Amino acid sequence: MRSFIPFRPSALLASALVLSCAQSVPPARDPLPSWNHTAPRKAIVAFVEKITKEGSPDFVPVPERIAVFDNDGTLWSEKPVPFQLMFAFDQVKQLAPQHPEWKTKEPFASLLKGDMAGVAATGEKGVLEIMTATHTGMTTDEFSRSVQDWIASAKHPKTARLYTDMVYQPMLELLSYLRANGFKTFIVSGGGVEFMRPWTERVYGIPPEQVVGSAGKLKLESRDGKPVLVKLPAIDLIDDKEGKPVGIQSRIGRRPIAAFGNSDGDLQMLEWAMAGDGARFALFVHHDDAQREFAYDRADKLQQFDKGWDEAVAKGWTVVSMKDDWNTIFPAAR
Amino acid sequence: MRSFIPFRPSALLASALVLSCAQSVPPARDPLPSWNHTAPRKAIVAFVEKITKEGSPDFVPVPERIAVFDNDGTLWSEKPVPFQLMFAFDQVKQLAPQHPEWKTKEPFASLLKGDMAGVAATGEKGVLEIMTATHTGMTTDEFSRSVQDWIASAKHPKTARLYTDMVYQPMLELLSYLRANGFKTFIVSGGGVEFMRPWTERVYGIPPEQVVGSAGKLKLESRDGKPVLVKLPAIDLIDDKEGKPVGIQSRIGRRPIAAFGNSDGDLQMLEWAMAGDGARFALFVHHDDAQREFAYDRADKLQQFDKGWDEAVAKGWTVVSMKDDWNTIFPAAR
Repeated sequence: MRSFIPFRPSALLASALVLSCAQSVPPARDPLPSWNHTAPRKAIVAFVEKITKEGSPDFVPVPERIAVFDNDGTLWSEKPVPFQLMFAFDQVKQLAPQHPEWKTKEPFASLLKGDMAGVAATGEKGVLEIMTATHTGMTTDEFSRSVQDWIASAKHPKTARLYTDMVYQPMLELLSYLRANGFKTFIVSGGGVEFMRPWTERVYGIPPEQVVGSAGKLKLESRDGKPVLVKLPAIDLIDDKEGKPVGIQSRIGRRPIAAFGNSDGDLQMLEWAMAGDGARFALFVHHDDAQREFAYDRADKLQQFDKGWDEAVAKGWTVVSMKDDWNTIFPAAR
Repeated sequence: MRSFIPFRPSALLASALVLSCAQSVPPARDPLPSWNHTAPRKAIVAFVEKITKEGSPDFVPVPERIAVFDNDGTLWSEKPVPFQLMFAFDQVKQLAPQHPEWKTKEPFASLLKGDMAGVAATGEKGVLEIMTATHTGMTTDEFSRSVQDWIASAKHPKTARLYTDMVYQPMLELLSYLRANGFKTFIVSGGGVEFMRPWTERVYGIPPEQVVGSAGKLKLESRDGKPVLVKLPAIDLIDDKEGKPVGIQSRIGRRPIAAFGNSDGDLQMLEWAMAGDGARFALFVHHDDAQREFAYDRADKLQQFDKGWDEAVAKGWTVVSMKDDWNTIFPAAR
């Protein structure tokens, strides 16, 4: 009993406030219904309970409760290719009438013919040309509108779902659970920041100012007497691997106490979070569910999960098996 | 009466909740006691009232209530030189024993002799050398500790106050007033982001993740088996003039609806905020109080207020006379 005594008065006060204030108290419900009662769920709950327990040695004040999430493969699917690339492909098709030269110029010619092997044959250089053609030259407002239009209607080639319906229901619950416990949730993604911001607030409850991602340089110009920011074909930040701690420090400026990823591109972010003082939490999502989603790890060429997996096992970080630990993958389609 | 009717029920509900819930209701008090009842105060209150009034055509949802503040000269003093430069000078003195070569090398030699005219004679190149010597090479954690040590004890040469006691009381009240009305307050300063973040939360209530500033490039390294971020002698962002809208877009990603500055270095930021749709607010602080603070504007070499002043007058933006509109400048010393 002894250890409970110091908490009694505040617990009583809290109960009194709840009873006297709340117009309708919802029945206590499971905040993580899509998580099976296996080790990852238990580890998450144990971490949150200890860092929110006032007076405990692991207590973390609310302003320091920063949690960072990778996006592709951690909050939503990333196969067959990261969805931003699907957006870029679709943009090429939409812009093609203004670029008659693309009919004979690679990688555009192959893409417009639907010859994805031909596109792949142009390698990184080809992808970079597609990204430059579809992601630079316009203003940030124009680009944002293109993303909004696309994300509202484009469908995933395998599931025929909206891309925003290919987010992970258990991660939506986790984001809400953390926020309900005083966390500020951030995305820290290798994906483009200007590609994510137009929809992350609606889909994840994460506002634009809490989205960190790869970015191109911007230039202030005046058009029709109004200031605009033009997206330049020059890199400002590659927010992947060793770039993730840099993105966190330059944009957030506070070391996260919890970090969530799914591939080796997230390893430095998890290491950065874990290297701080006090209680810390790191989790990798392991894609091992070919039936309900996709299965890939050590041998994957685009999103390898290899070194990160080994380090997670060695250090006792949490590894989620999508197959065993999640009873639901995607939310009901909207 | 007619226009009031739609708001009645929610006002009643709000009152009922306040009466039934609050344990002690503080008497209504002026949120801006240091602001005289002159035009700037009236303009601020009118703006906040109209954008927070549900159902009004000017209503702005809470997530979009982003306000950005310059720091030097807007939230705290910037004379005789921006305080970050005073920090750099003091750091040179502290680091001098490890740099015997500085005794004969400019601008360090003049600085160590207290010959500020000699330092000034080395021009921008000299200042850059001092900044490089004191702001790069160390880890972000080491730099943060240096700033914390300095800001806790260094005193302003004219007032003998702590620098954090040279913040403007009316602006502290304004920050609180905006936050109480659902605003998220950000700093967007030409000063160094790593110099501000260690103390802005304590002094202004602005957390590190809401501080945008000039920045050097960072590099992830491993030291004693731990990841560290090293401050490199290379520019990442100059968050001044045309760099301010770039800093806002790259770090915040949402256009502010209110912007506050004091010099031409803030003009593009105010223009950027004002160029959005819906109700907007822009304010310049005019330093015209030589007796209580400092007086400088069009002729000032470091912090000129000239084009911005003209544009503010032409466009009807708010210009605060520190002399006439503020009854208090600094808070009581701590």
